[in-house]
Amino acid sequence: MPDYKVYYFNVKALGEPLRFLLSYGNLPFDDVRITREEWPALKPTMPMGQMPVLQVDGKKVHQSVAMSRYLAKQVGLAGADDWENLMIDTVVDTVNDFRLKIAVVSYEPDDEIKEKKLVTLNNEVIPFYLEKLDDIARENNGYLANSKLSWADIYFTAILDYLNYMTKSDLVASSPNLQKVVDNVTSIESIRNWIDKRPKTEI
Amino acid sequence: MPDYKVYYFNVKALGEPLRFLLSYGNLPFDDVRITREEWPALKPTMPMGQMPVLQVDGKKVHQSVAMSRYLAKQVGLAGADDWENLMIDTVVDTVNDFRLKIAVVSYEPDDEIKEKKLVTLNNEVIPFYLEKLDDIARENNGYLANSKLSWADIYFTAILDYLNYMTKSDLVASSPNLQKVVDNVTSIESIRNWIDKRPKTEI
Repeated sequence: MPDYKVYYFNVKALGEPLRFLLSYGNLPFDDVRITREEWPALKPTMPMGQMPVLQVDGKKVHQSVAMSRYLAKQVGLAGADDWENLMIDTVVDTVNDFRLKIAVVSYEPDDEIKEKKLVTLNNEVIPFYLEKLDDIARENNGYLANSKLSWADIYFTAILDYLNYMTKSDLVASSPNLQKVVDNVTSIESIRNWIDKRPKTEI
Repeated sequence: MPDYKVYYFNVKALGEPLRFLLSYGNLPFDDVRITREEWPALKPTMPMGQMPVLQVDGKKVHQSVAMSRYLAKQVGLAGADDWENLMIDTVVDTVNDFRLKIAVVSYEPDDEIKEKKLVTLNNEVIPFYLEKLDDIARENNGYLANSKLSWADIYFTAILDYLNYMTKSDLVASSPNLQKVVDNVTSIESIRNWIDKRPKTEI
């Protein structure tokens, strides 16, 4: 079995899909959590000076979605054929677009600009994405692709806390089908065990 | 052979990787170019109200990177195993991050903010990404992953005109290894034929 290490800050955010997928497959991993003090010295050792980073048998890789897809294949959560994988990839990239649209407002440093952007985000962007994603989850019977569990469901559920943190809301509260996706993922025993034992962090 | 349609505006930009990949595989496709006048009526028929959209035997899909990965598998430009695919996915997502960092400045509507952002983009972001990507291309002997042709090279070369347009520059002019990637892709006969016959557009 390969030797896995996840390098990230002491937050869930973009590292959590990796931790969920490794936990799902019962693949032991070293959950390395870097402090803000340690980071400047470590930064140059990371592929693009960023984290999360996954280390597989000593080789460091980056890009959270690419790493998640790779791990999904190792734990049996990829699609059964090219078309199923396209359905998974499409919805994951859409979830990621949604995250970026939230993040660009959440991290806006200028208060005045932020207020203006928040109006569009809350009145247009969030309702649009939630409706589309909830429709997809409804059409797929409580999953995000191919009417069965895949890494798309894991990815969405694992970063949802981060999306909720940035939007100061419970995004799936009024999206019953997305709530079902979350329930389907968090009722998996290996995932529940991970959630129970992981360090408690706000983000 | 499936019936392929590419729906996009009359630009290269995010639709061009799809057109390159289909051309590479000599897969006939309907290159549908929507005018700004036609778009409002068509928008609701597209999965997320956006283009490019790929239609495969009547089924419409979206997300340019996901579609490119799917087409790559159909034309033999995916990796040979999970690790090779991870290397490809990682560099494609990095190229896409680079594109987004350029786009956020290029599409900034406020001139004053744009001027400020342009300084960081030109002095920090662009040199950083070009150096990293050129290093990758050097380590992989003129390719972006696994020292051989893959859809990562096609993706980069196909969107380079768009990146150059947004930055008003020739991004690979001082990056000899990235120039080699472009040369390797554009010297493929099926790609050269496509470039020769495609509609001439600025973007």
